[in-house]
Amino acid sequence: MTLMKSWVESANTADTDFPLNNLPYGVFSTLTLDARCGVAIGDMILDMQAAEEQGIIDLTDDPLFDVPFWNEVMEEGPAVWTALRNRLKDLLAANSSDQALIAPLLISQADAEMHMPLVVSEYTDFYAGRHHATNVGTMFRGAENALPPNWLHIPIGYNGRASSVVVSGTDICRPWGQLKSPNHELPAFLPCRRFDLELEMGAIVGMSSDGPISVDEADGAIFGYVLLNDWSARDIQAWEYQPLGPFQAKATATSISPWIVTKAALEPFRTPTPHREFELLDHLKDTGPMLYDIDLAVTLAPQGKAATTITQTNYNEMYYSAAQQLAHHSSSGCPMNVGDLLGSGTISGPTKSERGSLLELSWGGKEPLTLETGETRTFLEDGDTVTLHGAAKGDGYKIGFGTCTGTILPALKDPYAR
Amino acid sequence: MTLMKSWVESANTADTDFPLNNLPYGVFSTLTLDARCGVAIGDMILDMQAAEEQGIIDLTDDPLFDVPFWNEVMEEGPAVWTALRNRLKDLLAANSSDQALIAPLLISQADAEMHMPLVVSEYTDFYAGRHHATNVGTMFRGAENALPPNWLHIPIGYNGRASSVVVSGTDICRPWGQLKSPNHELPAFLPCRRFDLELEMGAIVGMSSDGPISVDEADGAIFGYVLLNDWSARDIQAWEYQPLGPFQAKATATSISPWIVTKAALEPFRTPTPHREFELLDHLKDTGPMLYDIDLAVTLAPQGKAATTITQTNYNEMYYSAAQQLAHHSSSGCPMNVGDLLGSGTISGPTKSERGSLLELSWGGKEPLTLETGETRTFLEDGDTVTLHGAAKGDGYKIGFGTCTGTILPALKDPYAR
Repeated sequence: MTLMKSWVESANTADTDFPLNNLPYGVFSTLTLDARCGVAIGDMILDMQAAEEQGIIDLTDDPLFDVPFWNEVMEEGPAVWTALRNRLKDLLAANSSDQALIAPLLISQADAEMHMPLVVSEYTDFYAGRHHATNVGTMFRGAENALPPNWLHIPIGYNGRASSVVVSGTDICRPWGQLKSPNHELPAFLPCRRFDLELEMGAIVGMSSDGPISVDEADGAIFGYVLLNDWSARDIQAWEYQPLGPFQAKATATSISPWIVTKAALEPFRTPTPHREFELLDHLKDTGPMLYDIDLAVTLAPQGKAATTITQTNYNEMYYSAAQQLAHHSSSGCPMNVGDLLGSGTISGPTKSERGSLLELSWGGKEPLTLETGETRTFLEDGDTVTLHGAAKGDGYKIGFGTCTGTILPALKDPYAR
Repeated sequence: MTLMKSWVESANTADTDFPLNNLPYGVFSTLTLDARCGVAIGDMILDMQAAEEQGIIDLTDDPLFDVPFWNEVMEEGPAVWTALRNRLKDLLAANSSDQALIAPLLISQADAEMHMPLVVSEYTDFYAGRHHATNVGTMFRGAENALPPNWLHIPIGYNGRASSVVVSGTDICRPWGQLKSPNHELPAFLPCRRFDLELEMGAIVGMSSDGPISVDEADGAIFGYVLLNDWSARDIQAWEYQPLGPFQAKATATSISPWIVTKAALEPFRTPTPHREFELLDHLKDTGPMLYDIDLAVTLAPQGKAATTITQTNYNEMYYSAAQQLAHHSSSGCPMNVGDLLGSGTISGPTKSERGSLLELSWGGKEPLTLETGETRTFLEDGDTVTLHGAAKGDGYKIGFGTCTGTILPALKDPYAR
């Protein structure tokens, strides 16, 4: 695949995240426009509400863009997803005859504030990267018990808290929680001391189901992908997670990038899942290349200082694809809904510089990381800005995700003061 | 407290679940009426949509009862909750002058089908009954490790799946899932063999929050309570639950009783939480009697046969109250929303006949239970009907919850056949 040219000139460069090949979906507002759906093209956003109001987008009997979220488009199903993407390509292609009609509906991204692109129905987070699971398991349970016996057979996941999902750019307040230091006999309620990031991708479910669905059906039900940072309070987690898993440690916030990159845009970048020691059971088996070749990176910038790239890895390091996770999620008959968000689990590669969390990068806090500014980090400090980057790289173009960023605010002095 | 008399005669008996003292909130439909909000009184239901349309209920500028769920009432907050309850008491009290107005708006419960009383925003399930946690811990981890070290300091909980919550009367299809028998080396995808019930109460959050709230604030935010059966696939759970907790084992269905019993109706039945070995941290401390004296029972009826009471216990056996659970849930800054449902965790008393699950009653399947019909049970069999009962007992009256019932349908022959 090569770059598809647009009459929006900023979309025709090799380094834009948003060429005509991409066309991701977000929600934006400006000083004069209420929050509404938009499509990124180069450094501009196409105002979908205006395009629909003017009859330029007219795919369904009922309006799709009278609400500031993409759930209604998802509800329409894959035929409308395809029709919409084709229409957008026609309108924005270099040879389009609609340039004069569309140009007034383009807003500069520099003037826009981004909002949550969807209403998250429910949020599930997986633990499906083998290097991450091996690293964490080694730290917590020892190298010989690193991977639990089920891990190579099942994409392990837990339900997260949809109410805590926020859009990139939202500040993250360091949480309080119940913790127990190894050198204290009793727990205490304190600000988190080991606050961490987790580099993940999020898959957005675009079709509902109310019974077990196959891996192919699950793949067909996925609408698109975002970058996802599952902020994690490691000290809260260590004390609370046995026996029922993480709870408050993961409930402060999860940030997602503001642009939903559609599955269609990622099709040219499909890659196979890794070699498997155990064949997966039939209902979870790969039915083709299930992952995507998406370069990922995380930068960390101390307050007022330059950012250092602290990790670089790729989504193709996952052991289970989002389709396999969704198929597993539905296997008990669990009803899945439009707007469900599935976190991939932390994505780490095999080497140290590819680890997707500070827990792994600092090996549980024992090996501080040195930033380019000379400062060191074990876990996040107040004022740190963490930014996730992701892009699938084509021939002279890329399918970018924009960024997923958040700055750590100090813990409240008294969380119960009103 | 004694029985408050109503002009609805069926509400004045000692054995009705729904005297004037109760006035629980549900959603019903009949052959001629669409699903709508209703209030139970004796063996009748007051049609709230009609009452509002006729101007008899007129508490807010915007209508509350033009939708078939109680979330809009909850959104109004405690002042409206109190005003509504007072208005209903006035309308239905023995000395009411509104009898002629109200009588035509009463529908027989026998003619009504019940629906979900609320839109469940998110669902969290706790593990906060000490006898249950001790029993299960003993079975899974041995008596010496029965209670995890955090258990006496924190109400352990995990996020469940809101999409799987169903109203009493919904049939429950035995799930498939990935299991591994101890005598097999590899897992298989099979229908669940150890399908179980869990006797719980559900607390419904009626006020949103976006930061840590105190136990008193949490108590004030609770709108009411329901009976809750957290159907559990023990064999799926055993294989999947390490290290991140139960997932598909708990995702098939959770049943709730159709009537939300308000916190106000339960006030006379407050009881203290049990003696604590460790003082709770300040943000979780009891601030008064936090539990309720509610008698609970579970019956099991094999297909076409009489029901046997398999357990009898009381909600006052909980170690943590719903208010303490909600306070903990919010402690990380986790945003809580109107319509969030908090399962208490399985409620078991200290003796064998008070155990709230078949896992405990049959001690992991090793001690089959003999029903009054002569049949035995370790776990649920196809065709079994499980019914939860609950009532707070006053002087010559009770505050009943109605029933929470479900019948087990056989597993699908091929869950992927379409």
